[in-house]
Amino acid sequence: MKLQFKKSDLTNAINIVLKAVPSKTPMSILECILIDASNGVIHLVGNDNEFGIETICKGTIEVPGKVALEAKIFSEIIRRLPEAENILLTIETDERNNTVITCENSVFKIAGRDGDEFTALPSIDKNQTVSLSQFSLRQVINQTIFSIALNDSNKKMTGELFEVNGDDFTVTSLDGHRISIRRVKLNNTYGLSRAIVPGKALSELTKILSGGVYDETLISFSKNHILFEFDDTTVVSRLIDGEYFHVAQMLSEDYETKITVNRKKLLECIERSTIFVKDNDKQPLVFKVEDNVFGLRIHTELGTMDAEVPIQKTGNDLMIGFNPRYMVDALRNIDDEEINIYMSIPRSPCFIRDDEKSYNYMILPVNFNPDEV
Amino acid sequence: MKLQFKKSDLTNAINIVLKAVPSKTPMSILECILIDASNGVIHLVGNDNEFGIETICKGTIEVPGKVALEAKIFSEIIRRLPEAENILLTIETDERNNTVITCENSVFKIAGRDGDEFTALPSIDKNQTVSLSQFSLRQVINQTIFSIALNDSNKKMTGELFEVNGDDFTVTSLDGHRISIRRVKLNNTYGLSRAIVPGKALSELTKILSGGVYDETLISFSKNHILFEFDDTTVVSRLIDGEYFHVAQMLSEDYETKITVNRKKLLECIERSTIFVKDNDKQPLVFKVEDNVFGLRIHTELGTMDAEVPIQKTGNDLMIGFNPRYMVDALRNIDDEEINIYMSIPRSPCFIRDDEKSYNYMILPVNFNPDEV
Repeated sequence: MKLQFKKSDLTNAINIVLKAVPSKTPMSILECILIDASNGVIHLVGNDNEFGIETICKGTIEVPGKVALEAKIFSEIIRRLPEAENILLTIETDERNNTVITCENSVFKIAGRDGDEFTALPSIDKNQTVSLSQFSLRQVINQTIFSIALNDSNKKMTGELFEVNGDDFTVTSLDGHRISIRRVKLNNTYGLSRAIVPGKALSELTKILSGGVYDETLISFSKNHILFEFDDTTVVSRLIDGEYFHVAQMLSEDYETKITVNRKKLLECIERSTIFVKDNDKQPLVFKVEDNVFGLRIHTELGTMDAEVPIQKTGNDLMIGFNPRYMVDALRNIDDEEINIYMSIPRSPCFIRDDEKSYNYMILPVNFNPDEV
Repeated sequence: MKLQFKKSDLTNAINIVLKAVPSKTPMSILECILIDASNGVIHLVGNDNEFGIETICKGTIEVPGKVALEAKIFSEIIRRLPEAENILLTIETDERNNTVITCENSVFKIAGRDGDEFTALPSIDKNQTVSLSQFSLRQVINQTIFSIALNDSNKKMTGELFEVNGDDFTVTSLDGHRISIRRVKLNNTYGLSRAIVPGKALSELTKILSGGVYDETLISFSKNHILFEFDDTTVVSRLIDGEYFHVAQMLSEDYETKITVNRKKLLECIERSTIFVKDNDKQPLVFKVEDNVFGLRIHTELGTMDAEVPIQKTGNDLMIGFNPRYMVDALRNIDDEEINIYMSIPRSPCFIRDDEKSYNYMILPVNFNPDEV
């Protein structure tokens, strides 16, 4: 194999597929990047068997072939090469996969591995393919992924539910304390597809989904996999088995108290209160809802904060406690200047949602002793 | 005590004194910042007993007094307060040191401690005071501090030698593998002063020495301490006891081979070679000096790099091995476009120095087996 690249083209392609290369694994071949130039196009592939990325890299094929190169060393060599528009770098392998990377006055020799040892991405039977802008997909993931569960005790909580129904595309995550739902409108109408997508794959996906509102992603659903195609890149992730939680039953439209508040002002106040919350501390931030004013109070061994935020209120007065970090997560991921918060009684969840239900964040309250506040 | 501040003034002062607040210490009072407004000026002080910083903070004293506040919580509260030109924040304490910080619609209460528990900075008998620009002092420290020893097995190697003699100010560090020396000219002539200053204090000092070539620092030497005064800030560090190494005996002006080379090109090539060096790896980068060309070769289990850099050479051809990281450290800290490297035999150190001796970096070579290169 003998290939020629511009450094910037190769660097971009490496940075994309690196997202699927695990840093530690018992199967050392997975720590490689596959360069496949056997079929007239140069593909780079990273694959950890759960989650794989393939991308096309611009370059010249002088001699076709393929090789797997240890990702860390390979990417580091390319990164350190001189950068200039007119400088080309050459990657050449012999029949034993010994690889020589040449650029200007520097020559690097590293041991490669047989490209056939590398596991290709699975081929997918597409049940349904949905079109969405890269911007929207990145947004709905970023605005919900903070409330997946990080530990594996309930596998389904570590993923997000992707649901297509008609012209609705809905993404849901929950961790036992809160539910985050984002919905966007599709340009076409589709049949029902549901899939639980691992959070890790989605989080890596958002890092390489760099396009805007006019750049398309195709999302294809299959029995065991989901496929994302955009620009020159294909991302495949295995799905999490089983049926997702019945979230609709946990949502309620009823409320006793509705407040309208400036999101940024409220967020800043709640962020300040987290100064007094240590890791794993359960001490709630207590909201005191009265006419025109939202009193916030937190009291821990580290200190006390009292703050007030102006609101418009309809319905009953109320005192209710929340984990301030969960409130911060939801409020940071809303763009609206004014938001509505719906509450009922101190033991019922609150909902932060807009009228169109493009977002709906449910947060469970935390018990507190009113005498200690 | 009752004080009023603009947030930006207080934040700046906190960020300066925080550099002297240890994060973990058995004496919890050291984890505090002292606010001392008992003498008509507001001072903030951080002090870990080896190293202390005092700075003046702009603000209004409504009621004089002093209090020690836990640095992490205090700085976090101030950092999170709203920022605007016209917003003032108030710090008020009662007779039990309970402290209330008020800003707009937020009120924080934290427990303070008696300001008299806090250890004041030592008062210093100044033997000699030297004037230098903040820019020069920051430079000479940054350009030498990388070659202090990080572990304590030889305490003197963890500090830098500061030496004033006539109009010369010289800073020296060494770690057993290399020596770094920087010399700047002073505007006046002074008697001899020598002091071994702990590296940790110097490294924190450079972070707060923000001024330029026209901003002065006064450096005062005493028997056991060194004092730096600049802007509204005073930094005091205890010295390391004992006599420093006799560095002059380790330097040599003799050489067999002198090469002149473009610093940036050489640096980039050597940086690339470090890709193949794992932590604690002793494998040297071998320099092959010939007429007009400098061959660089490294060969480790990870791979091989060969590179060439054009040079001008006088004297003998030579093959010599070095730890590439030490070369990188020295070359990164020189500003000159072209540099001179002086060498003798494969077992003798090399020197990178300019004709004025404003810098002199000595690096010991590493043995290698010429048959394996």
